[in-house]
Amino acid sequence: MSTYLTILGFNSAIPTINSAPTAQFLEMDERCFLIDCGEGTQVQLRKAKARFSKINHIFISHLHGDHCFGLPGLIASFRLLGRETPLHVYGPKGIKEMLETIFRLTETHKGFEVVYHELNNKKSEKIYEDQKLEVFTIPLDHRIYCNGYLFREKPKERHLNMEEIAKYPEIEICDYQNLKNGKDFVLNDGYVLKNTVLTKDPSKSVTYAFCSDTRYSEKILPLINEVDVLYHESTFLHDLKEMADYTGHTTALEAARIARKANVGKLILGHFSNRYHDLNVFLEEAREVFPNTDLPKALQQVEIL
Amino acid sequence: MSTYLTILGFNSAIPTINSAPTAQFLEMDERCFLIDCGEGTQVQLRKAKARFSKINHIFISHLHGDHCFGLPGLIASFRLLGRETPLHVYGPKGIKEMLETIFRLTETHKGFEVVYHELNNKKSEKIYEDQKLEVFTIPLDHRIYCNGYLFREKPKERHLNMEEIAKYPEIEICDYQNLKNGKDFVLNDGYVLKNTVLTKDPSKSVTYAFCSDTRYSEKILPLINEVDVLYHESTFLHDLKEMADYTGHTTALEAARIARKANVGKLILGHFSNRYHDLNVFLEEAREVFPNTDLPKALQQVEIL
Repeated sequence: MSTYLTILGFNSAIPTINSAPTAQFLEMDERCFLIDCGEGTQVQLRKAKARFSKINHIFISHLHGDHCFGLPGLIASFRLLGRETPLHVYGPKGIKEMLETIFRLTETHKGFEVVYHELNNKKSEKIYEDQKLEVFTIPLDHRIYCNGYLFREKPKERHLNMEEIAKYPEIEICDYQNLKNGKDFVLNDGYVLKNTVLTKDPSKSVTYAFCSDTRYSEKILPLINEVDVLYHESTFLHDLKEMADYTGHTTALEAARIARKANVGKLILGHFSNRYHDLNVFLEEAREVFPNTDLPKALQQVEIL
Repeated sequence: MSTYLTILGFNSAIPTINSAPTAQFLEMDERCFLIDCGEGTQVQLRKAKARFSKINHIFISHLHGDHCFGLPGLIASFRLLGRETPLHVYGPKGIKEMLETIFRLTETHKGFEVVYHELNNKKSEKIYEDQKLEVFTIPLDHRIYCNGYLFREKPKERHLNMEEIAKYPEIEICDYQNLKNGKDFVLNDGYVLKNTVLTKDPSKSVTYAFCSDTRYSEKILPLINEVDVLYHESTFLHDLKEMADYTGHTTALEAARIARKANVGKLILGHFSNRYHDLNVFLEEAREVFPNTDLPKALQQVEIL
């Protein structure tokens, strides 16, 4: 199964005519995740033709409005569209009080369960796991309690080498799962067939890390080490480093340093301050340190390999 | 001073790619009012090039999300843009708890005062007045406590008839205000000059009534009698009258009946259910009863005469 990332919005603070606040739609192993949900995210999901109704897990980094003000409307729309499947919402402690207060006062009768997973741990923790993948928090350093999220596919099953297997009639279909799991096969005469002969290496497991909003922090390096794609905020250019520190943000140069030190596959920048009109300046600054840096492409589905 | 109405959004329930939920920007005597504030209203204000920062009074009809979910983001943006002027928010009881809970949990430090005017009266009341105009509630019949709003210019001063005034040197500049206010002028010899000779009729005072969401209700007729423009919801066509009643809405035919009975100048329909793709069907149904009916023109500034 492939992994696709659709960045729905990536500007900071104030929505504009041409850009939306932070939200991302991640499809991994046929699971659909929403990461952050700024105002207008439900319309961005429609524009992206995303599989809206398949979202069962929403991860909110922090409770600043540009990352969560689209949540009440999205959930209200789920209800109007007849949703029945439970919805899991992961986010800082307080998210439940906020949403439930809104739903009570606006008489939004949900008709499906919202399961809140409130976070307040300052250390990374595994917050989601299923058969195929895991999600971990990446504690960030912002003005308010904030987590990035690491999405990691579990190691996949080995591929059967049917050409080799065919040579041994003793191997039956019911043995295949053990082979996929990496086990050797013992023939009736006691001879051990090595698993590496009977199978081929599994497909690569994909990792994606989302880090917004945060000051430059090397503490996240072990968590994001060698991820395939890192989305890291870069609200300012480095000449405004002081402003970045003061407001709890990162510069493009710093984001690139993080990407280089973590040896990630690709860096995508985002969360740019509205003061910049030409975003290529971010790319130029970052690429000097980490060449494989991209600007986000709003509403485009990008495959993570 | 002219009165201009800009309809920012008029669809019901779920925002779509091409239409926004209810919000209107009304400029009357240089006051800028916002009426309702569905999700995405701040972006619609920008698209309409409305005088965003001049909004000092926001009137919310009711607390369903499609009429108020844009409010937290708008207020947060005001703060980020450095607003200092107090902002008056009129809306159903509960609006303060909702907004203040959101601001507390999202750490939105406003930096300016939000003055709440919470409403729970089931009878019409005057909720705003200044030198030039007044605003009254129009109690509506929806599933939740809901008010329309009537914006009414006060009678204007009479215009001086300078040709006539020039014939009487006794009339000095300091007398002009009395003439504008309708007073006669007594000459030194005791002769009374009638005001109607010295002045001309004042410019027309404009009235605008906003009515969404509501079931058909003739109780509103005395309040909206002969308004220049009536915006009245018409969520359904009349073949879905039962659905309209059940959900607390009006049909196009009923909105036209209200307009005819109240003898309004013009009717603008709105708040259409997403099930209709060609909105002309609303126009056709309403015009049979009230010919001077229009569809809303999103983002266009329309003068109310």
